[in-house]
Amino acid sequence: MTSAKVGLALLGLGRIGQVHLDIILSSQRANLLWVVEENTALAESVMKGRDLLGKLRIVSNDKFDNILLDPLVQGVYICTPTDTHTALVRKALAAGKAVFCEKPLSEELADIKACYDDAEKYGAKLFCAFNRHFDHGIRSMYEKVRSGGLGKLYMVKTTFHDTPLWMGAPTFSQTFLIHDVDLLCWFADALPDTVVVQATTNIKEVADKSDVDTVGVLMRFPCGMLGILDFCKYSPYGYDVRLEVSGSKGMEVTDAKPISYVKSYAPNGRFAEDIHASFPERFNQSYTSEQEHFLDVIQGKAELEVKRIFSERAAIVIDAIKESYRTGQVISLKK
Amino acid sequence: MTSAKVGLALLGLGRIGQVHLDIILSSQRANLLWVVEENTALAESVMKGRDLLGKLRIVSNDKFDNILLDPLVQGVYICTPTDTHTALVRKALAAGKAVFCEKPLSEELADIKACYDDAEKYGAKLFCAFNRHFDHGIRSMYEKVRSGGLGKLYMVKTTFHDTPLWMGAPTFSQTFLIHDVDLLCWFADALPDTVVVQATTNIKEVADKSDVDTVGVLMRFPCGMLGILDFCKYSPYGYDVRLEVSGSKGMEVTDAKPISYVKSYAPNGRFAEDIHASFPERFNQSYTSEQEHFLDVIQGKAELEVKRIFSERAAIVIDAIKESYRTGQVISLKK
Amino acid sequence: MTSAKVGLALLGLGRIGQVHLDIILSSQRANLLWVVEENTALAESVMKGRDLLGKLRIVSNDKFDNILLDPLVQGVYICTPTDTHTALVRKALAAGKAVFCEKPLSEELADIKACYDDAEKYGAKLFCAFNRHFDHGIRSMYEKVRSGGLGKLYMVKTTFHDTPLWMGAPTFSQTFLIHDVDLLCWFADALPDTVVVQATTNIKEVADKSDVDTVGVLMRFPCGMLGILDFCKYSPYGYDVRLEVSGSKGMEVTDAKPISYVKSYAPNGRFAEDIHASFPERFNQSYTSEQEHFLDVIQGKAELEVKRIFSERAAIVIDAIKESYRTGQVISLKK
Amino acid sequence: MTSAKVGLALLGLGRIGQVHLDIILSSQRANLLWVVEENTALAESVMKGRDLLGKLRIVSNDKFDNILLDPLVQGVYICTPTDTHTALVRKALAAGKAVFCEKPLSEELADIKACYDDAEKYGAKLFCAFNRHFDHGIRSMYEKVRSGGLGKLYMVKTTFHDTPLWMGAPTFSQTFLIHDVDLLCWFADALPDTVVVQATTNIKEVADKSDVDTVGVLMRFPCGMLGILDFCKYSPYGYDVRLEVSGSKGMEVTDAKPISYVKSYAPNGRFAEDIHASFPERFNQSYTSEQEHFLDVIQGKAELEVKRIFSERAAIVIDAIKESYRTGQVISLKK
Repeated sequence: MTSAKVGLALLGLGRIGQVHLDIILSSQRANLLWVVEENTALAESVMKGRDLLGKLRIVSNDKFDNILLDPLVQGVYICTPTDTHTALVRKALAAGKAVFCEKPLSEELADIKACYDDAEKYGAKLFCAFNRHFDHGIRSMYEKVRSGGLGKLYMVKTTFHDTPLWMGAPTFSQTFLIHDVDLLCWFADALPDTVVVQATTNIKEVADKSDVDTVGVLMRFPCGMLGILDFCKYSPYGYDVRLEVSGSKGMEVTDAKPISYVKSYAPNGRFAEDIHASFPERFNQSYTSEQEHFLDVIQGKAELEVKRIFSERAAIVIDAIKESYRTGQVISLKK
Repeated sequence: MTSAKVGLALLGLGRIGQVHLDIILSSQRANLLWVVEENTALAESVMKGRDLLGKLRIVSNDKFDNILLDPLVQGVYICTPTDTHTALVRKALAAGKAVFCEKPLSEELADIKACYDDAEKYGAKLFCAFNRHFDHGIRSMYEKVRSGGLGKLYMVKTTFHDTPLWMGAPTFSQTFLIHDVDLLCWFADALPDTVVVQATTNIKEVADKSDVDTVGVLMRFPCGMLGILDFCKYSPYGYDVRLEVSGSKGMEVTDAKPISYVKSYAPNGRFAEDIHASFPERFNQSYTSEQEHFLDVIQGKAELEVKRIFSERAAIVIDAIKESYRTGQVISLKK
Repeated sequence: MTSAKVGLALLGLGRIGQVHLDIILSSQRANLLWVVEENTALAESVMKGRDLLGKLRIVSNDKFDNILLDPLVQGVYICTPTDTHTALVRKALAAGKAVFCEKPLSEELADIKACYDDAEKYGAKLFCAFNRHFDHGIRSMYEKVRSGGLGKLYMVKTTFHDTPLWMGAPTFSQTFLIHDVDLLCWFADALPDTVVVQATTNIKEVADKSDVDTVGVLMRFPCGMLGILDFCKYSPYGYDVRLEVSGSKGMEVTDAKPISYVKSYAPNGRFAEDIHASFPERFNQSYTSEQEHFLDVIQGKAELEVKRIFSERAAIVIDAIKESYRTGQVISLKK
Repeated sequence: MTSAKVGLALLGLGRIGQVHLDIILSSQRANLLWVVEENTALAESVMKGRDLLGKLRIVSNDKFDNILLDPLVQGVYICTPTDTHTALVRKALAAGKAVFCEKPLSEELADIKACYDDAEKYGAKLFCAFNRHFDHGIRSMYEKVRSGGLGKLYMVKTTFHDTPLWMGAPTFSQTFLIHDVDLLCWFADALPDTVVVQATTNIKEVADKSDVDTVGVLMRFPCGMLGILDFCKYSPYGYDVRLEVSGSKGMEVTDAKPISYVKSYAPNGRFAEDIHASFPERFNQSYTSEQEHFLDVIQGKAELEVKRIFSERAAIVIDAIKESYRTGQVISLKK
């Protein structure tokens, strides 16, 4: 019966794990049966802040096998560090559980392929959390493009100026650019023919790690669409994600999201509140919507919209970006 | 212990009742024990749409006494038609329950006073749902005014263009203008000295009922602040609530809230999505925040912010508006 | 022949006189033959700032008769103080000159009528400078209303927050509210049935003169349109003129005009440059367009768009506002 | 004496020539003595539209020598086709005239150098019309960067979506990208170390000429600034020029300029008028300001702000763009 609550387990209570925790808890459709978090101090603090101390079953990693044996668990959320994703995903799929995994599935394309091969082998659902597909604004732009509303596609530009500064992965890993790369490929519905990156370093903390923080990427797609991505590893003014699409019939843009709608007019100018401080606020709606979709998929109400090809394409392009940065040249992906 | 869930009963599953139902259900702090709805077809449809059929205890009005005897019920939400409010509120207060009542408490000032008298008599909390006090934008403007950030207050203007057309009460009842009147008095922290209304009728359905649909009100406050309220009973372009505050140091305005952040540039102009269609979307954040405050009050974590005086002032001013409309003259409230 | 330059005389080099001086000088269609300014220091300073010392014929008031005898002078601009308007206008009309007179023609309705009577008697053109009719934004809204694009007209709201503080006339004179009153009557195409004002005083300099600085006016028009006017005699944040029109098909608004299009995003919020500091910048385009129209009228290329009725209506309504303020009551203009 | 009018000659009455014609005519500081236009039908139509038939001295190219002999001519505007610029500029400089030349001075770097060498040799002023330096918004952003207001410079992005479609020069000529390239170098105050372009073709008319219409360029500058330029040869939605600057203290952006300030709210969304249709409207203020500066330079009131290095840098970078397009690779300009 489709109206029973969906039993879930959640692995990882870091920043994004807490986002999903709150959304699961506020849903009438989900029943959170298990939480896995190795760091007991973190787990306690997270639960305390939500008046949930003693109300949820929180276990350590070594109980994952038991969780997979629990027949009430239908879906598993994997919000642990990236290097643990592949093993956890494959285990859960092998146990026949539907898997919701934060991006990326892995730093390695081969691992990503292995995950999806398992999903096919075991007939289990694997949802990689490309949440921007579920953002109302971005999705409405995508649908307008697909319906021909912008005509022939000329150019798609993504801007991602991140905050706070997070040094947990190098800039040219799957972590940072994956959403923007995925959006460009999604709009083009293809891999690019060429990829080239230029990057500089402007922030001391980044320079100290011999990494780059200021990035531009150009991608030429078979259909004639040009993709332009820009990335700053640290934005002093808030979390800034934008998308701009130009075609033969017009242009659409989605802007950084403001905190409120108040505008101030003062003797020395006009003011407005900040844009959002970080991803949980900016993408709150899309996190909720992607969960609704995941539950729909588990309950057989919808086909999985986030395809295997999305993860594979992003991995291929990010590998090309790495190579372009290493060689200083334009990389061809054309066969 | 403050972290236990707060037991609640909800009366009424109309438009605003459904708003509160969803917020209560998504809260980790609340436990919805009873729902009262006389219209069983409506109740069934509301529950079905939320996959809640058979999962909530739904009873008819005649069970209200039983509910009040339930010691687990700490708070009662009253979202029934206005003419039932006073009796239900007073009963619940007499039973020692905290009461959350949709505005207005009554069409009659005497009834409003009686409700608050009972609250004082029984030591029970009475929260009249002036949710706009909890809207982030409006509240930030209020706090800026109180902290002197706008200097001496010159003028406050409220705009309310409602949609959809709702004919359930005449325009000059407590129902329509109460939020705007309350905001003006709240910013001035006083009753106005004078009130005058001018109104016209432009919509056939409204004319057929001999009512007015287009309204302007001026209020002069003791502090020198001028209040200007405009109201259209039907807005063809979406639910439009705005607030503008001018003072000696600047001006602030909060605009109608857009559905998304996408802007389109086309050969024949620039486009953006609608503003919100109705109050549940426009004030979603404030409904959630006011519930948090109500739960805080029940749990002794906060003092009730929505004062008796707010309800009384609004009732007095709306009575003056009615009189100004009837006589065609300026009404003085100055003693 | 229509392509010859139009010979002009300009009376008055105050703030608005300088605006017209610059527009006349930059026009290829106009030939400025005479300037009248009694204050020779002012005249010298104005000319010096424009590198025009010794290049224009500047005379004192007593030469006005001679100017009217100059057959090359086709049009006369009257930008002198209000109390001199009527006499100068009537003299110029009697001499057969086309007259461009800054608003108001007079503080007295009888004088205004006398001016227009003379215009008819002498077959001379009298253009009262209701420049807002020529503002692209306001005019496009007017035309949309007239073409039915907003459906049945519900409500028109004008906002005028003036700066710098100008104490040269009391608030309830023809000077301050004339543009806003004119716009409301223009959109309604009628005199209002009722007029009521409420006003307060918040500024010390204004209080010292026993004047008011914060004003709201309501007007009920025969067609069902409600007019709402708000006025602040001093705006700390720039010259703020806005217009908002609501009807059965939608709403249009024209906002305060910004100085530039630059937006700043900083750690403590978003910023933009001021709105315009005063009328010459805000209405620069409309001043230029109204002059084009005046020259067209002189050259027989266009019918005069600013009608006698506009001046008369504004005078009648402002007299009603004065009476409403004096009596504290609603004034009926219905016959 | 500095306050005498500056005598000018104008060569070329094409689109940009007409822009300068109107600005010269409306200036009180300039005296247009000669106009050179070979196409007499065009000249006649231009003059007729301005009521100037028979009022300006219009001659053909072969009279240029005579013009240069006219001692009243202090400045020469060169608005003829690009391939004629160098010869005309050098002739005028040799005659000691100040020269205002539309960009580019030439398609060839050697020619550009020769022009500036002549300027130095003859002690004559050569102003290449980088008008965007005089746009209020762009200049305020430049000055904020120079004053440190945005901190360390991370990234500058220029967007240029042109309209109407103009096929008079290939995309990778000095004509199209020169303003954007100049802005990037101006903000970085340097040549880039690397330049790479990616381009596609989406428009049939452009494909028919084997040209490209959709372009992205990345430039890495020595200071760490990344430059990103995007160009569409045809924008269906209006003339769209934008600039975005990010640094360690914040971000600033200047948007496409709207025609008016009217916003419409309708049942199917919110609307606003188009952005400007083409460059004369978008950059009207900067064209006027750059002329003021040119006249100041002639009159010795200001130092020439548009330096030789600006033209040379733009030429070098555009040559690198051409090479990157030809070879498909990243071009290094680092010595």
